Amino acid sequence: MNDEFYMQLALKNAQAMKGQTDPNPLVGAVIVNENRILGVGAHMKAGEPHAEIHALRMAGDHAKGATIYVTLEPCSHHGRTGPCAVALVEAGVKKVVIATLDPNPVVAGNGVKILKDAGIEVVIGVCEDESRQMNEVFNKFIVEKKPFVTLKAATTLDGKTATRTASSKWITAPDARRDVHQLRSENMAILVGVNTVAEDNPELTSRIPNGRNPIRVILDSKLRIPLDAKVVTDQQAETWVFTSENYDKERRKQLEEQGISVFVTSGSSQVDPEDVMETLGEKLVSSVLIEAGGTINAALFEKQLIDKVVLYVAPKLVGGQSAPTFLEGTGIAEMGNAVELANLSVTPIGKDFKFTGYPIY
Amino acid sequence: MNDEFYMQLALKNAQAMKGQTDPNPLVGAVIVNENRILGVGAHMKAGEPHAEIHALRMAGDHAKGATIYVTLEPCSHHGRTGPCAVALVEAGVKKVVIATLDPNPVVAGNGVKILKDAGIEVVIGVCEDESRQMNEVFNKFIVEKKPFVTLKAATTLDGKTATRTASSKWITAPDARRDVHQLRSENMAILVGVNTVAEDNPELTSRIPNGRNPIRVILDSKLRIPLDAKVVTDQQAETWVFTSENYDKERRKQLEEQGISVFVTSGSSQVDPEDVMETLGEKLVSSVLIEAGGTINAALFEKQLIDKVVLYVAPKLVGGQSAPTFLEGTGIAEMGNAVELANLSVTPIGKDFKFTGYPIY
Repeated sequence: MNDEFYMQLALKNAQAMKGQTDPNPLVGAVIVNENRILGVGAHMKAGEPHAEIHALRMAGDHAKGATIYVTLEPCSHHGRTGPCAVALVEAGVKKVVIATLDPNPVVAGNGVKILKDAGIEVVIGVCEDESRQMNEVFNKFIVEKKPFVTLKAATTLDGKTATRTASSKWITAPDARRDVHQLRSENMAILVGVNTVAEDNPELTSRIPNGRNPIRVILDSKLRIPLDAKVVTDQQAETWVFTSENYDKERRKQLEEQGISVFVTSGSSQVDPEDVMETLGEKLVSSVLIEAGGTINAALFEKQLIDKVVLYVAPKLVGGQSAPTFLEGTGIAEMGNAVELANLSVTPIGKDFKFTGYPIY
Repeated sequence: MNDEFYMQLALKNAQAMKGQTDPNPLVGAVIVNENRILGVGAHMKAGEPHAEIHALRMAGDHAKGATIYVTLEPCSHHGRTGPCAVALVEAGVKKVVIATLDPNPVVAGNGVKILKDAGIEVVIGVCEDESRQMNEVFNKFIVEKKPFVTLKAATTLDGKTATRTASSKWITAPDARRDVHQLRSENMAILVGVNTVAEDNPELTSRIPNGRNPIRVILDSKLRIPLDAKVVTDQQAETWVFTSENYDKERRKQLEEQGISVFVTSGSSQVDPEDVMETLGEKLVSSVLIEAGGTINAALFEKQLIDKVVLYVAPKLVGGQSAPTFLEGTGIAEMGNAVELANLSVTPIGKDFKFTGYPIY
């Protein structure tokens, strides 16, 4: 068996813990000697041992002279169980294969240094992309203290998010819509504009079994949000309204009386999207799903705030020069300056197709 | 081996003759008895034997009691080799498995009737979709005497065919653009609007080895086409200009003097797209590739003239409310009335993705 095989097993173990390690990243480890697997491990819960420690305990004395595959650089800091890099040295492993370095560039390489200084062979970069993608939210938040932003949109094959009359129910089929509820459950917050609230009166909750409801973030420059909107009254999740300096003071009081949090951003007539992300970061919101219209999406895009795009494309055509697309605003002038998406992939989902990609600004 | 296996072999043989059977359809045949293949055949060229005849000749006396797999219903009319259905009866085959009936509903079933009347077992519908798709151009043209219309477009992931400043070079990468040249080579005509000619001065030829240049069809309601446009002067392929009743008479003379054909459609200010298709059909143009802008595309879409959509999606975002999409015009009012696409498939092509689907009006 080769390095990729064992690292894939480590990745599988890590991924199985999805949603239960917050605020820690997903990490998996596999210990191997002479083609025999001697230990497996994963980080399961914040405050509990790291993946390497579980795998070392399972391997016991067999760890001596073995190779360990770990999806993230072993830590060099003193946590509850001491630095993992030191534990690996003490266990006498011969070789450490690492998928990716610590996401924080300030500390990246410190774990590797401990290992190398002890004479252990270190290989870095096996299944690196997969490991980074698995912890994409953590990797950004731990470094930038701002949420990882996923833009979600659904369009017809001709690129429309609604018809010219704003009719949009439903573009996609039930399988894709269920997938959106999964996305909502995986994000700590969901962001829409006040127009979406005023027009559709959505709940913005995750309707899947055991789904976690995200914090509902509403961009509303004047505080025009209806006081009887579901997101204001239903108590199903927190609702945070971001407004501009030019907001309605009386309305703010009414909203706060209903338990809604109101945040004033520095924009004089529009909500400043960078302020929104900074505030969300301060409030430890590490991920936000954008389900807004093309104008808000474009404001975020122009500020280079979108980290990931998830697009559902339905097998339908509607046409219409005035029908909206998911990215409006001014737009880029030259095709040569278009923002490319890295790792764009497409998978069928029911009758629809799901694109996932990462803008490179 | 099962029916699908043998029919797939018949399809493969048929498909290998792509481009060399016009105006006849692609047809393949395989003769089998007790799991032994005794003959294979394909229609190779108009005027030469049909697929069944080739397979029968190969099988010789072994055809007696055998099963024949044929991708299209055996013919019942007297061509150069007599009706294939009669030949199968005379050869003593026991069973005939057919992918699809004759596309012409007026004669469909006639071949099957001859076989059944002779006591031969007939199975219809094995790999039917594949067989129909393989001859999609023929199937429409033979029945409706109008060209099979393929709409080709290239967009960014956010659905734009150009930026707000009309910048569109290049949306897709070389692999996708090469595929477009293949598409051009497979179509008898290529259709664009006069704006495309005036702005881009394209050649509209197929730049692939042994590629066939399509007839260049230009929609030009006033005859504004520049007399020095490449499609007017370069002699690389025929150019047919379709205009409205309100055209410039002097310009028509100038164009005709340069060898350009001018056709007047019944529209008073716009070119009537139905008239265009009828004329192309009368001129025995069985297939046309639309490479026009969103307005002409929408005019064709509204008249339900588009049979197939081929869309290249690039991993790029440009944004822009005023940036064009590939389907403009008025558009459909209600999402519930969107035109669905049958058999929509997507495949990666270089850095881009290619969608292929069939509108169901």
